[in-house]
Amino acid sequence: MHMEIPQYSPADFIGIDDPSIISFGSGQPDLPPPKEVFSCLPTYRDFKYGPVSGLEKLREALAQENIGYDKDHFVITNGASEALDLALRVIARPGDKILLHSPYYYSYKPLCEANNLIPVYCTTIKGKIDIDDFKAKVEGCAAVLINSPSNPTGRVQDIETLKVIEEQTRSRGIPLISDEVYKDLIYERVNYNLSGPQVITVNSFSKTFAMCGFRVGYLFSTHRSIVKRVIDLKSHTSMNTNILGQEMAYQALKVPKSVIDKQVAIWKERRDMLCAGLNKMGLQVWKPEGAFYVFPAIPHSHRFCWELFEKYKVITYPGDWFGAPGHVRFSYALDTQKIQQGLDRVSKMLQEWP
Amino acid sequence: MHMEIPQYSPADFIGIDDPSIISFGSGQPDLPPPKEVFSCLPTYRDFKYGPVSGLEKLREALAQENIGYDKDHFVITNGASEALDLALRVIARPGDKILLHSPYYYSYKPLCEANNLIPVYCTTIKGKIDIDDFKAKVEGCAAVLINSPSNPTGRVQDIETLKVIEEQTRSRGIPLISDEVYKDLIYERVNYNLSGPQVITVNSFSKTFAMCGFRVGYLFSTHRSIVKRVIDLKSHTSMNTNILGQEMAYQALKVPKSVIDKQVAIWKERRDMLCAGLNKMGLQVWKPEGAFYVFPAIPHSHRFCWELFEKYKVITYPGDWFGAPGHVRFSYALDTQKIQQGLDRVSKMLQEWP
Repeated sequence: MHMEIPQYSPADFIGIDDPSIISFGSGQPDLPPPKEVFSCLPTYRDFKYGPVSGLEKLREALAQENIGYDKDHFVITNGASEALDLALRVIARPGDKILLHSPYYYSYKPLCEANNLIPVYCTTIKGKIDIDDFKAKVEGCAAVLINSPSNPTGRVQDIETLKVIEEQTRSRGIPLISDEVYKDLIYERVNYNLSGPQVITVNSFSKTFAMCGFRVGYLFSTHRSIVKRVIDLKSHTSMNTNILGQEMAYQALKVPKSVIDKQVAIWKERRDMLCAGLNKMGLQVWKPEGAFYVFPAIPHSHRFCWELFEKYKVITYPGDWFGAPGHVRFSYALDTQKIQQGLDRVSKMLQEWP
Repeated sequence: MHMEIPQYSPADFIGIDDPSIISFGSGQPDLPPPKEVFSCLPTYRDFKYGPVSGLEKLREALAQENIGYDKDHFVITNGASEALDLALRVIARPGDKILLHSPYYYSYKPLCEANNLIPVYCTTIKGKIDIDDFKAKVEGCAAVLINSPSNPTGRVQDIETLKVIEEQTRSRGIPLISDEVYKDLIYERVNYNLSGPQVITVNSFSKTFAMCGFRVGYLFSTHRSIVKRVIDLKSHTSMNTNILGQEMAYQALKVPKSVIDKQVAIWKERRDMLCAGLNKMGLQVWKPEGAFYVFPAIPHSHRFCWELFEKYKVITYPGDWFGAPGHVRFSYALDTQKIQQGLDRVSKMLQEWP
């Protein structure tokens, strides 16, 4: 007898806090933020609206980290999610086409749909953008959205690919949104940040500093009129981002680079453990070069994830949500002991899987 | 010679912190939040995503305050602004009409425009809804948006008017959004909260508890499918509202009612002082019954506000932003000493005004 599979979505899994569940689901670090983040709390007393664009000192600190930008190029947002939504809302009009590469982060399609935009998908080969397909589809799009390192594939796009994408969008005057929330979690080489007058970069404090719950992200661009339109829209849709969250993000930027390097070493150990475990079960995996996701091929992925949750209390996300049915996303944002427990449960499940 | 008037918007004034400026502008309390709000900070250490709908204990506490609702009727949002934006996005489709009463809160029109909706304006007589005009315009609208007490007029709609609006929308199956962010700041009678299966209520911790900068608002409705669609959309556009802001809001709900009553007494004193001062200058004012705004008639309001700012460092908001040119909005969210200083400057400005 077949188990009934309900309609389920990421929102059904976010915020679950049951210790008997092993979650390879939500993409958030399990290690706490650096202690500096909490240092401002005991004496904090501000309560008023701040500038809609964000705290000046925070934008200044971000400008110092990003060569070629100044504080007025930045807007602090409710996570990268709001930055993406605002960018799409000011750039595109209903009916416009947005070029994504598939598999894609699960919010991209609903964000396009919520804004009455039409997602167009560029194919990838083992997670790497097929640049010929990109060139064939970019003309006539209102924007391009690139995510490298990628959620869900963990792949980092090659530098020569990213340079062609820069050139193609710049020469055509097409806004290029670069979702770089995993830029500091990269194992193989330093990241290549997309740049140019057409580029709108989206980033976040969530992944690098384990601050997901505080929802502090940002958007930046040298394209002043886009930045201004984002601020104007945000003044009506949410106003300033939580001022205390911004203060905590400012404190996070004071953390020495060595702290982040140590975390990357931890991520790498987990990645190797999870990949080895999945390989051992006979699953095909692309080796993640960044972020913290493995994306093995597993048939009937939607049903697989649901049954794995119902029978073995393991959360994974079906590739169907990322435009790639037949794959399952495993996040390795959990400690090695839990990864091992989770692998054991997945192994049992696979033994009974067709 | 005429002064050049630039394009300016509320975003240009929010977050200004210059003590030589007197601001009758931004609608935020100057008195700090109750001390309970900060009590959780020293030991606070959570950092993970929370449920997109909001912390369960906060939604439970709100359900206890609102008879007839349970925790699953609530979504905690980035201020009332996000609640409104989300409500409009799930209810209406591009080209739909939304019925507002004019003068209206300055974000309503841009929120409609950002969502490709067409605002339709019901007229008011001295700030009170003309119910015949309402009945003539409601048919065919995708939603009605009511704001009582009103920003910018400070007026509270009559209970019989509100009952007709409930009946008209319920019988037609038209969603009725009730923006009640000033429900606790009312001087003349207890508030009448709109209710019914078609009602979506928007509220906030900003005004009652002086928590504007923390951006914690909420939306609630017994209409489950609307609540579910709001949560789904928010899971892509911003995810959970800042978890620490929610904790602070939860603490705020423990504050005894007497604290709020004391604040209302302070607001009333300021209102009387500002109204008397403006009357003395010969300006026509409607007596505010709620919120903290006075909305006198002043010709060439857009130019008036800009020149008042440039010459006398006094911030006021032109009625033009609220659909009512020829009026100026004065917020009285500042102490009586500053109100007096501000009145003196306005008086000088009026002497040279045509």
